[in-house]
Amino acid sequence: MQKRYTYVISDRTGLTAEALSHSLLSQFPQVKFEVENLPFVDTKEKAIKTLELINRKAAEYGAKPLVFATLVNDETRAIIASANAVFFDLFDTFIGPMEKVLDVESSHSVGKSHGVLDFAQYSARMSAVNFAMTTDDGMETDHYARAEVIVIGPSRAGKTPTCLYLSLQFGVFAANYPLTDSDLTSTALPPPLANHADKLFGLTIDPFRLQQIRQERFSGDTYASAKTCQFEVAQAEAMYRSSKTPFVNTTKKSVEEIGAYILHKAALRRKI
Amino acid sequence: MQKRYTYVISDRTGLTAEALSHSLLSQFPQVKFEVENLPFVDTKEKAIKTLELINRKAAEYGAKPLVFATLVNDETRAIIASANAVFFDLFDTFIGPMEKVLDVESSHSVGKSHGVLDFAQYSARMSAVNFAMTTDDGMETDHYARAEVIVIGPSRAGKTPTCLYLSLQFGVFAANYPLTDSDLTSTALPPPLANHADKLFGLTIDPFRLQQIRQERFSGDTYASAKTCQFEVAQAEAMYRSSKTPFVNTTKKSVEEIGAYILHKAALRRKI
Repeated sequence: MQKRYTYVISDRTGLTAEALSHSLLSQFPQVKFEVENLPFVDTKEKAIKTLELINRKAAEYGAKPLVFATLVNDETRAIIASANAVFFDLFDTFIGPMEKVLDVESSHSVGKSHGVLDFAQYSARMSAVNFAMTTDDGMETDHYARAEVIVIGPSRAGKTPTCLYLSLQFGVFAANYPLTDSDLTSTALPPPLANHADKLFGLTIDPFRLQQIRQERFSGDTYASAKTCQFEVAQAEAMYRSSKTPFVNTTKKSVEEIGAYILHKAALRRKI
Repeated sequence: MQKRYTYVISDRTGLTAEALSHSLLSQFPQVKFEVENLPFVDTKEKAIKTLELINRKAAEYGAKPLVFATLVNDETRAIIASANAVFFDLFDTFIGPMEKVLDVESSHSVGKSHGVLDFAQYSARMSAVNFAMTTDDGMETDHYARAEVIVIGPSRAGKTPTCLYLSLQFGVFAANYPLTDSDLTSTALPPPLANHADKLFGLTIDPFRLQQIRQERFSGDTYASAKTCQFEVAQAEAMYRSSKTPFVNTTKKSVEEIGAYILHKAALRRKI
């Protein structure tokens, strides 16, 4: 299998460079990429050290490393671009054409993208995170009037990370409520949810996967048995159907995908 | 001020497209961008509806909208690319050159980037999220042996979202401990932290900003007074210095920036 050393370089956090380069690399499953993330390359000295690192690797390994960069500073970028590597500039590739279209110059200023820009947004995000923490796992159901979405599902189907993600990423007020044994004896919505049917979003999961997850910490328990997992998933899905609750199968989805899907399907208003 | 309608379009979650286009747009503060995110454009029908939306806006408004897309499907991309708009393909721009360099064809498969790829990673992430929840706000300090980092700071300086972000984004075990009044009467580390000095990371914040945040919910309380906020921040910083705890000022930083900074500075090993 072909192997390529890959460097993801940024002036700041590198999160944007990381996300796009990850998408791009995943299109080449035939190649083994050895990826190193190098954020905060924000001085000439750091750029030179990074350049030396890349050139050393290129000399050692033979094939040119790949470099994905979002470097706003021209001097830093010129240094990295001079490396013995294949250079993909995720930023500059588009800035030139955008300047032409918009007929204005770009500010070429670093790090605007993830900065705290306004207090209202910051505050919305913090409130959402606090709400998700307070209402995690069926706590404080009397706060449901303030929820924008209430994520429901069997234990370990992914409710908590989904709600934390919705709050952190989008500033959405997301509560979550676990469907327990006793809730699942009937397909009727549990009492705390009955008045909030329009805010519910269900999670389901492949029972075998659920069993695998539960067995990690509760191996041997009835809770982690195949029978329990199959029963709970089947009953939860029956409840979703009978209550017309939209739901999503989380088995092959990441937290990001589940969050983006719920945001989209439930037409939630993002504040960030 | 020049205004431009902008569409961010993707086959899947659109998170990558969103991150990069946001970075790019922030380089043009002279322009007001009206941004609409359109994720999950994954069928020919949805692509045609999107095309019509863009063309309607172009006709209505005059200036061509900007379109940022990560569309893997060739048919969908061709439809969107035919819009009366300026089309920036964040994906295809790089795939062609990468195919040449690597001398292999891309798989052109959609949505690999955020998919759950392996159970070990999923499990690491869930464990980290559970750890962050369990050890939030000074709870369960006896779990600190398992922490990779313990974030400390005055109340409302940003500890909880930082730890949740570190756990969700990087799978890092991050606990947080609030420095309270009584902790801050001395510059010595509070007892629960004393044996974990090498894991600590401090947060500080501009006292006026802290006051603004606290007044949102506790206006009038001593807790939210200028004097209290100034005292707590000064004492916390004195504690960081005397205990040689690295720290970061969160005033102008987003949660993403704080998280990436701590990961980098504390040299934490990411699992995701």
